[in-house]
Amino acid sequence: MESQQQQAAPAAEQAAPAPVAEQRKKPTAEEIEERKRQTDELRKKRAAEQRSKTAQQKPAAAAGKEESPAGTPSPAAATATAATPETFNFPKDREGFAAWYDNIMTFADIVDRRYPVKGMPILKPYGYFMHNQIMKFAEQEWESQGIQGAQFPVLIPADFLGREKEHVKGFEKECFWVTKGGENDLETKCALRPTSETAMYPMYALWIRSFRDLPLKMYQTNSVYRYETKDTRPLIRVREIPWNEGHTCHATAADALDCLEQAWGSYTRMTRDLLGFTGVRIRRAVWDKFAGSEHTDVLDTIMPCGRVLQAVGAHYLGQKFARVFDIKFLNKENAWEYAYMTCFGISTRILAAALAIHGDQKGLVLPPMLAQKQVVIVPILVGKKTSYEEVINKAKEYRDVLMRAGIRAYVDDTPSSPGEKFYYWEMKGVPLRMEVGPRDVQNGTCVVVRRDTGEKSTIQGADVAAACRAGLDALLANIRAKGLEFHRTHITTCNTVEEMVHAIQVVGGFARIPFHSMGMEAKVSDERVHELCGGEVRGFSPAEEVPAPGTLCIITGKPATVWAYVARAY
Amino acid sequence: MESQQQQAAPAAEQAAPAPVAEQRKKPTAEEIEERKRQTDELRKKRAAEQRSKTAQQKPAAAAGKEESPAGTPSPAAATATAATPETFNFPKDREGFAAWYDNIMTFADIVDRRYPVKGMPILKPYGYFMHNQIMKFAEQEWESQGIQGAQFPVLIPADFLGREKEHVKGFEKECFWVTKGGENDLETKCALRPTSETAMYPMYALWIRSFRDLPLKMYQTNSVYRYETKDTRPLIRVREIPWNEGHTCHATAADALDCLEQAWGSYTRMTRDLLGFTGVRIRRAVWDKFAGSEHTDVLDTIMPCGRVLQAVGAHYLGQKFARVFDIKFLNKENAWEYAYMTCFGISTRILAAALAIHGDQKGLVLPPMLAQKQVVIVPILVGKKTSYEEVINKAKEYRDVLMRAGIRAYVDDTPSSPGEKFYYWEMKGVPLRMEVGPRDVQNGTCVVVRRDTGEKSTIQGADVAAACRAGLDALLANIRAKGLEFHRTHITTCNTVEEMVHAIQVVGGFARIPFHSMGMEAKVSDERVHELCGGEVRGFSPAEEVPAPGTLCIITGKPATVWAYVARAY
Repeated sequence: MESQQQQAAPAAEQAAPAPVAEQRKKPTAEEIEERKRQTDELRKKRAAEQRSKTAQQKPAAAAGKEESPAGTPSPAAATATAATPETFNFPKDREGFAAWYDNIMTFADIVDRRYPVKGMPILKPYGYFMHNQIMKFAEQEWESQGIQGAQFPVLIPADFLGREKEHVKGFEKECFWVTKGGENDLETKCALRPTSETAMYPMYALWIRSFRDLPLKMYQTNSVYRYETKDTRPLIRVREIPWNEGHTCHATAADALDCLEQAWGSYTRMTRDLLGFTGVRIRRAVWDKFAGSEHTDVLDTIMPCGRVLQAVGAHYLGQKFARVFDIKFLNKENAWEYAYMTCFGISTRILAAALAIHGDQKGLVLPPMLAQKQVVIVPILVGKKTSYEEVINKAKEYRDVLMRAGIRAYVDDTPSSPGEKFYYWEMKGVPLRMEVGPRDVQNGTCVVVRRDTGEKSTIQGADVAAACRAGLDALLANIRAKGLEFHRTHITTCNTVEEMVHAIQVVGGFARIPFHSMGMEAKVSDERVHELCGGEVRGFSPAEEVPAPGTLCIITGKPATVWAYVARAY
Repeated sequence: MESQQQQAAPAAEQAAPAPVAEQRKKPTAEEIEERKRQTDELRKKRAAEQRSKTAQQKPAAAAGKEESPAGTPSPAAATATAATPETFNFPKDREGFAAWYDNIMTFADIVDRRYPVKGMPILKPYGYFMHNQIMKFAEQEWESQGIQGAQFPVLIPADFLGREKEHVKGFEKECFWVTKGGENDLETKCALRPTSETAMYPMYALWIRSFRDLPLKMYQTNSVYRYETKDTRPLIRVREIPWNEGHTCHATAADALDCLEQAWGSYTRMTRDLLGFTGVRIRRAVWDKFAGSEHTDVLDTIMPCGRVLQAVGAHYLGQKFARVFDIKFLNKENAWEYAYMTCFGISTRILAAALAIHGDQKGLVLPPMLAQKQVVIVPILVGKKTSYEEVINKAKEYRDVLMRAGIRAYVDDTPSSPGEKFYYWEMKGVPLRMEVGPRDVQNGTCVVVRRDTGEKSTIQGADVAAACRAGLDALLANIRAKGLEFHRTHITTCNTVEEMVHAIQVVGGFARIPFHSMGMEAKVSDERVHELCGGEVRGFSPAEEVPAPGTLCIITGKPATVWAYVARAY
């Protein structure tokens, strides 16, 4: 079922206006008391509704299921919308992760899955901001490397897509097809781009004539479309995939490979340095590489559930596509030669990994780069009407100081109670909370609380910018260290099948096994691995030494030529 | 015919590698002389080919035709690709404008029309940069007004699109339809969004409950799709339209209208202040407004050919869409009320207008905001090999000074002759050219040349940043003044049909006529206007006073109630 009339929201939701924090208006002092009273009433009413609802239905998410069928608001989503902020409480352990992820997507306003086309959730402002930060960082990196932005059409004629036989085989069954324009049938049906090689490379063939036109390096930030038949999951497996793709042409293989290494460097700065997580750089086995490439390197990141997620893809295309699309140049010796090409891309999976790895039972823990609000300032009013103005003004003063220092700060002066605000912004993953109360105003201080550790510090007013900057840096360093440690402890070198089964099924993450080959002849061994432990051969690390002579493949008993990384994958 | 196998490039082109300036490599000093010789030879060969080609075929563009059919590289485009930079020489007068526009699109690397889907040109890096600058400015404006970025799906189920009857009537015949996913027929066909109201508003209905959720204001930067049956033209009438759209919900009509005025202010800052052109803010007649809106305001900009181009659209939707999509909120009196809504958007037409209005016979004249390279520095070597290093180093030193001052500067140290570089960068519209020769190195000076006036100044080395900043500002002020003057002199108030015919057919731009009504009853008079002069009633200026009592409509003889703006339009 592809699409379906959207259902009306449950009546209970309609009757209970839920405050949307992002949109909340600043009240005047006069309104505060009245709204507080109203809010309290609504909160009590809502909590009562919530309790009776929860009793009636177990959220699908908590049962570990995938998202609900297209068009039907999932019970989990409905629950989250009507829920009070306090209710986010999902353990993010191996078993609980699926429910944690499913719920945080809705609670934290990252996506809304109620759009009636399966696998095409809305990226809401809070989620879009994060995705956009990642895209902007990639764009800056590409510009600094001479890779230029451009825009190629979303429609790819069927015959273009079919030119590279190996490539099209990888995609033809998962394309959306445009067959009509207005009331007319199109003469040639067009695919919504599943990736842009076949849209870009025919144009590259027209633009490249001489070695002087090389390197030619372009990127696009757009969306690609895949008619996924598997279950979809926000940011991880969707049918409309917001991403950034680079496509380059070079005069030599060495230059192409060098360009790929530079791109990989950018991805490492993004994932490890700024987002605080890592993965194994894996070269895919021949049977599993990007269709039409010479080789494919990916960053496989271990998720809290123990499965791995491909967060980055970087492909050396050699001259394969150049031959198909006739991309050739007159070299310095005045002879025609096919260009050496690369392509590479990242999607919302980067964001999925960053959120998944750092979050905790209370919600998100955001690396500062992703936080739309890096510091939320909560004025503590403690009922003393007289100091309301003073406290709010001091909070705004601190906000302005932080903003001038380049820190995204926000004063939450809505009528909710401080406790509600704490829970809400913790759930949203805001890195630092600042509390300003009447005593702080008197003392010229404030209190800053770290999201990751809960650590509280009393800060002198003059130091807020420096202290918050240091707090953000310390948070990033801490969650990065934890992220890398999690990664390190979930790679298990295994010398027997039993160890491999234990690593995959009990420890989670990667089992690293001596293996006989990464060529097509080993595909059947990969199937055997899957039968044995439920994982699959993800590939090998090109940077690693091969197993010592005499080591045998634990699957076939043949001499081992490579360390294979085995994991269950998304 | 929708799509067609791309034709091989002409053999002549393949044999003659054309330097692509954007991609040119920096040569070492040793390579310079040899390349110069090669370049000279190639240039002579190419020029000879060019002459014989031009003799054989009159470019389509020069004959004022629209672009060539899908898939066939237009003769004009092929000519431009193979042409030497010197050959751009198209008068940008009223008659010549179509050819000027058609050719500059290709010469200046703004688009490539050889992609085989009609009306879906590639936005090349030089053009994409400009479009992106405009989008980024819009996004900054929206963020500062609390309008948040989000991303909604490209696919809109047919039944969603059909909900607002008036709206869908405006779009159903011009949608691209996705009917298949992989090998399956979709149960419900989906349109590629022709605009996003019907994708966004069902979600708004789920998100809005209370006055506290208002205003809810979001924007998207994406592309919309229209199956245009008219001739297409790059940036102006295309089937894939890169744009930025805002959609807002408010608790009161006044708040909605105020938001629209703020958005209009942003558009004015963009078009008039930064891009240096204007237009008439026109409210569309009832028969011509955005389908489903209460009223539509547009910025109609007069193009050099005398036709007008709608460059901005801003729509007050009132409660119409809210009723259809059930977007309602509990107001402060605890009663349900439908939201008051607006939407507004700009596309690549803004860029088309800016390029068209400021260009001249030699090519583009770019407002500094749009210039990927604001200052191009040309080292003048005059054959003295000994000072090559010194001159280049001084050029790079000036470039670095400019970059640090936030000015996008570029040293063109390719082997082409200075004359070739001058022509090339003039054609590309670079605002300032800096020349650095051996004498300049000795004197510690350089020469700066303005693109708009050709004015040359000798600048002291210490002053380059300030002088270039002042030069960019002066250029913008000058082209803006000329742009506004062109606008002012192409609005003719007409008191007779003869004057109107003369204004439309001879002067170009707007005829401003006393008219009886902007209601549906005047649609027939609009048709009469079209018969008389070939123009159409574009609407009226809501800011203007109505005609004096006793003034009669020049079309019907009835009492005039409004000044109608009549023009031929794109």
